[in-house]
Amino acid sequence: MAEQVAIGLLGLGTVGSGVVRMVNNHQEELQHKVGCKVIVEKVLVQDLEKERRISPEPDWLTVTPEDVLNNPRIDVVVEVMGGIELAKQYILQALRNKKHVITANKDLMALHGAELLKTAADNGCDLFYEASVAGGIPIIRTIKEGLASDRITKMMGIVNGTTNYILTKMDKQQLSFHDVLAEAQMLGFAEADPASDVEGYDAARKMAILATLGFSMDIHLDDVNVKGITGVTKEDIDYARQFGYTMKLIGNARKDDGKVEVSVEPTLLPDSHPLSSVNNEYNAVYVYGEAVGETMFFGPGAGELPTATSIVSDLVAVIRNMRLGVNGKNDVAPQYEKQLKSLDEIHGKFYYRLHIKDEAGTFSVLTSLFAENGVSLEKLLQKPIAKEGTAEVVIVTHSTTKHHDQLIYSQLAQSDAVFDIKSHYRVEGVSA
Amino acid sequence: MAEQVAIGLLGLGTVGSGVVRMVNNHQEELQHKVGCKVIVEKVLVQDLEKERRISPEPDWLTVTPEDVLNNPRIDVVVEVMGGIELAKQYILQALRNKKHVITANKDLMALHGAELLKTAADNGCDLFYEASVAGGIPIIRTIKEGLASDRITKMMGIVNGTTNYILTKMDKQQLSFHDVLAEAQMLGFAEADPASDVEGYDAARKMAILATLGFSMDIHLDDVNVKGITGVTKEDIDYARQFGYTMKLIGNARKDDGKVEVSVEPTLLPDSHPLSSVNNEYNAVYVYGEAVGETMFFGPGAGELPTATSIVSDLVAVIRNMRLGVNGKNDVAPQYEKQLKSLDEIHGKFYYRLHIKDEAGTFSVLTSLFAENGVSLEKLLQKPIAKEGTAEVVIVTHSTTKHHDQLIYSQLAQSDAVFDIKSHYRVEGVSA
Repeated sequence: MAEQVAIGLLGLGTVGSGVVRMVNNHQEELQHKVGCKVIVEKVLVQDLEKERRISPEPDWLTVTPEDVLNNPRIDVVVEVMGGIELAKQYILQALRNKKHVITANKDLMALHGAELLKTAADNGCDLFYEASVAGGIPIIRTIKEGLASDRITKMMGIVNGTTNYILTKMDKQQLSFHDVLAEAQMLGFAEADPASDVEGYDAARKMAILATLGFSMDIHLDDVNVKGITGVTKEDIDYARQFGYTMKLIGNARKDDGKVEVSVEPTLLPDSHPLSSVNNEYNAVYVYGEAVGETMFFGPGAGELPTATSIVSDLVAVIRNMRLGVNGKNDVAPQYEKQLKSLDEIHGKFYYRLHIKDEAGTFSVLTSLFAENGVSLEKLLQKPIAKEGTAEVVIVTHSTTKHHDQLIYSQLAQSDAVFDIKSHYRVEGVSA
Repeated sequence: MAEQVAIGLLGLGTVGSGVVRMVNNHQEELQHKVGCKVIVEKVLVQDLEKERRISPEPDWLTVTPEDVLNNPRIDVVVEVMGGIELAKQYILQALRNKKHVITANKDLMALHGAELLKTAADNGCDLFYEASVAGGIPIIRTIKEGLASDRITKMMGIVNGTTNYILTKMDKQQLSFHDVLAEAQMLGFAEADPASDVEGYDAARKMAILATLGFSMDIHLDDVNVKGITGVTKEDIDYARQFGYTMKLIGNARKDDGKVEVSVEPTLLPDSHPLSSVNNEYNAVYVYGEAVGETMFFGPGAGELPTATSIVSDLVAVIRNMRLGVNGKNDVAPQYEKQLKSLDEIHGKFYYRLHIKDEAGTFSVLTSLFAENGVSLEKLLQKPIAKEGTAEVVIVTHSTTKHHDQLIYSQLAQSDAVFDIKSHYRVEGVSA
């Protein structure tokens, strides 16, 4: 093995700059850990003249992808450019040129992970992607190795920092979704186009990656049921709090009897749940294993250096594998055929906030509707509101199936007693 | 490589039984993950006739250590017998016979880890010990690999379940230390001889292991300052709560300017600290890295199956290394010479509860004593108590050095104004 390992970067934005800074500033520790020098050889950028957070060496920058992808001096390619088609093409080219690849690209891994991992294995290359889920938290390594012996039956994740920041501020400062979003955009916590975050797609990609690994089953992005936080109101957060729950955007992956469900949706968590105290832009992944029981892994979900930490830790793993000559041999293909639960097999408790006719008899119409579907109620609260002839009712059901929940939803929507279904969310486990 | 890997166990107590159960029950998943069968070959026990939690195969049990240690059919030895001298001798013998070793023995690793790891490397063998710290939490792997690229500057751990259970019950149920200890012993959460737990020694061993890894410096058990929880009273827990703190037994390891401090002591944590909500017998390790920032890893600290999970995950790693032919090459020797902080270099805030003379002037004597040592006060509370002529004073200082704290302590002890120093604890960071 050579006396140094050279890396090429695709992209030099926030995360790319963090990688360069860490490789330079931690050179001594890195050398101790991997036994050789680690240098940056080339960096693919779009604009050679752009002002940057770091001062790259003059001969690093290039606008020609081949200077990285076909460069015989480069051992490891770090993809931090984002996007899907072009990134995929570059990564495939790098792997076919026998270069190991590290990527932070969750979109790409959620959509094309299986194909990319197969290409890596076929070429004897490592393809690592720790940074693609939950930034600085080494959750992929934990599932692949630390809990390798266990049967994971449940994973719940707060895996999108922007939405967790928004919900935390709505809760603590009694602000509306739109006010907090505007503030978050000003502070740089939310993108100018926030759809990917607030509609839950970003979290869904991460949950597809986690479910694939944790359940050893090839879960696609399309298999994830997604609902974002744009409809969450202060009122719902307040009722949740009153009932002993905290509202979070939860990525929820469960496996029962070999069948799985994966969703991302605003969820009422009991205040005592370990995820309930994960606030602001922090991420956390709760993992339940049959043998180990409850575990939780908490940390920063994004940011220049946290994400760079995961990438450079992957780099350490790649270089150790290079020294041992065992690259491309760590990945285990999914063990099971995908089996998704039907609506009848998905169990949960549900929260409804309704505006109903404020007159005698309405209430019993409502409660019979739940009873006729075999669903009993855990919590029920009725409150007069300013609008004449209207009362607000908030309901938390006992556990039922998603099938029954959908029946109830459509019956409520059609009922003369109900003016409006204001909100409808999933509720986790038991409340305090 | 053979079509199967055979393990030998030293010990068949709670954890050993858990390992056997997991190897048997998870056989199919294990085979998928490592590509071969995993079988139990021999188990060293003290008494062949004893009633056991599991039904071992008739030809497994032996009372002759050599049946495991010198057995040519055995590839991996799992040490779950505990104790120090004999366990050390057996592990050395196994390693010299080119058998990989997995141990859950924190006492042994804290005292003789360096020697054992060197013997393993010299013999081309793996020696893994994930289960020795924080049971089911894969914290050793996380520090060695997940955060491999970062500079860890601070680790705080709730790494002893018994004491965390006791402090939680004292806090939530307003009970005394001795009442909770008695209950915990009855429920099997505490040993008949609880000294190792309640005096902090068990936690100290784990912190020595974590500090050695996290700071890449050979930290001995003797380098850890230890204070247990036997002196913690309901009163202190209540005052802590009143001031916005939670009392926890915290293993505290910090590195500043290349020098380290490691301690285990009852500590007042701000309620907002991620470790403050870790309750009952759960463990958690908080890790601060320069690049990644705040992370926390939470889970069960002990128990048959959680601990077995860590052992069997180590087993998966050993077998993967066997298949790749890279055993004994994963360990990195400490990078730095040990440098411990002097008392002048250890910074912290401190909590005092004093009984003082309840007369004019005493209070100003007290405050001047702190002021003359250059220590300012963050919180101060005086309360009359039943004992005539005596007042209780509770003080939380601003940040100072341990050197100044010790000066103040001895001056208070000698002061005519002070009857008694009832308690004296460290305080972490900022309170709410």
